[in-house]
Amino acid sequence: VELVRRRFGGRSRGLVRGIGDDAAVFRTARPGELWVATTDMLVEKVDFRAGWLRPEDLGHKALAVNLSDVAAMGAVPRYALAALALPRSGAASWIARFYRGWTGLARRSGVALIGGDLSRSPGGIQVAVTVLGSSRSGIVYRSGGRPGDLLYVTGTLGCAAAGLHLLRRGRRRAVGGAARRALQAQARPEPRCEVGAWLARSGFARAMIDLSDGLSTDLARLCSASSVGAEVDIERLPLFREASGWGLDPVRLALDGGEDYELLVAVPAARAPRLERAYLRRFPPLTRIGRLVAGRGVSALTGSGPRRLPPRGFDHFFGGR
Amino acid sequence: VELVRRRFGGRSRGLVRGIGDDAAVFRTARPGELWVATTDMLVEKVDFRAGWLRPEDLGHKALAVNLSDVAAMGAVPRYALAALALPRSGAASWIARFYRGWTGLARRSGVALIGGDLSRSPGGIQVAVTVLGSSRSGIVYRSGGRPGDLLYVTGTLGCAAAGLHLLRRGRRRAVGGAARRALQAQARPEPRCEVGAWLARSGFARAMIDLSDGLSTDLARLCSASSVGAEVDIERLPLFREASGWGLDPVRLALDGGEDYELLVAVPAARAPRLERAYLRRFPPLTRIGRLVAGRGVSALTGSGPRRLPPRGFDHFFGGR
Repeated sequence: VELVRRRFGGRSRGLVRGIGDDAAVFRTARPGELWVATTDMLVEKVDFRAGWLRPEDLGHKALAVNLSDVAAMGAVPRYALAALALPRSGAASWIARFYRGWTGLARRSGVALIGGDLSRSPGGIQVAVTVLGSSRSGIVYRSGGRPGDLLYVTGTLGCAAAGLHLLRRGRRRAVGGAARRALQAQARPEPRCEVGAWLARSGFARAMIDLSDGLSTDLARLCSASSVGAEVDIERLPLFREASGWGLDPVRLALDGGEDYELLVAVPAARAPRLERAYLRRFPPLTRIGRLVAGRGVSALTGSGPRRLPPRGFDHFFGGR
Repeated sequence: VELVRRRFGGRSRGLVRGIGDDAAVFRTARPGELWVATTDMLVEKVDFRAGWLRPEDLGHKALAVNLSDVAAMGAVPRYALAALALPRSGAASWIARFYRGWTGLARRSGVALIGGDLSRSPGGIQVAVTVLGSSRSGIVYRSGGRPGDLLYVTGTLGCAAAGLHLLRRGRRRAVGGAARRALQAQARPEPRCEVGAWLARSGFARAMIDLSDGLSTDLARLCSASSVGAEVDIERLPLFREASGWGLDPVRLALDGGEDYELLVAVPAARAPRLERAYLRRFPPLTRIGRLVAGRGVSALTGSGPRRLPPRGFDHFFGGR
């Protein structure tokens, strides 16, 4: 704990006391400020395999999946706590490598590590992370979508799932640009913190969710929370087309692949042209992929007409993909 | 998640959105308010045995150990997040029982469950809990102690360790009042939230820590943070004397037993008489057990003179007691 505090303990404006006491202490009071909190646990052999993910990658990814949730609320991540359960052997160097990966992302994202816990694990590795964030310009919920809103996603869909496929096939080293990109997306997803906060602050986002379990599943969640249906224009999806060279269907990967940690956002149709003009060049690509409609359920629009799009993504508890 | 949200999801003033979106949302801004955050993970076969602790007990205890940290800062617990990793079989009823135990303590303590995560575990059960609390009347750190301060503890020391001893001997059912008390202290520790907040608010506490790993270890931590030494008057310790009937040494249990989740507090000597008069009757007993001194290290004062008191409590990672 002392080692982690000294080497990786976070500093931040508002942080009164970090790691080292019974709890961390921070100041929150600014007019109109709201805070968000989210927690996610990664379990070895379920969420990752130790042979596929280096400790540095796991440190990055365990933080990234939580930052992605904060981004999807339109908030700015501020503080993080990490509880690790580790087998005893080689733990000290494992922890140092874990926090090296963590710290790279934490610094870029402005997140201070303020608390943690370290347990011995009789089985595999478990990592539970909590991230706190704040917003002074309003929060964007899943439930804000209205019929007629246009749907946008950031980045490319299906890339992380293609990376998982490569790992399953034993391809841990990339032999080309596409493979490297897929493995990187799987091991080091880039949470869209800046984009999420910008979309909230600028008022374009009416509903937002991050794509952790696949578009078909996460869009169904946004629709359910907003009491609307949706149409997805399959031809517009920002696919990871290189996956077809590995015998994979890029459309399937985009719809059901999961772990992309891109943002899915609903924007009032009248504001969409302005969003497309205002969206910053340094942000990842933003692609319009469909719209919210009255009613229930998600349809896919294809060349041969619409069809139902059932949620086929990952369920963290009951598994399956 | 939906079941947990509906049955156990917390409501609270200031809570804008609880379980169900990418993150919970709450309002914090009050003048002068500080927030605290702490996280603790309980791992099956390391921190507990499933055969010894019912799911209800684990729900209570996983929350209690975190509330105890918040109490030791003098803050009031407000929000909690829980990440569970569970073997697949029987999970639904296990979760319902876990949250029944949790909710009993959460309601009494005014803590709203605002977030969670549920993973499958290929091994045993892991529970990672984060608790957020707030204070408008100042935080009490471990580091505030000064030479001359008097040391007080709440409650009885060594009771939970005696309960662990009974469980190890296969005595899961109590056959007498003392055994019941010990098993209860082990399975359902009562965090001293109200006392901790009162001690902070009233200004009596100059330094405070909760006794999670045994007095010898936690007092050494307080001393180290405050750059002082301490003398413990062994004859004043509030012992669990009934343990001697089971072949245990009540003094050893009190010093090194751990899991008492009582508070250890340093009070300026000049304020001590007033504290003893002002301390509320409905609080657990408060016992003066020694004092902080200049220098380093902790000594035990016994009938046969002082001796060194090395920290022999529990190390969560390297084990041993």
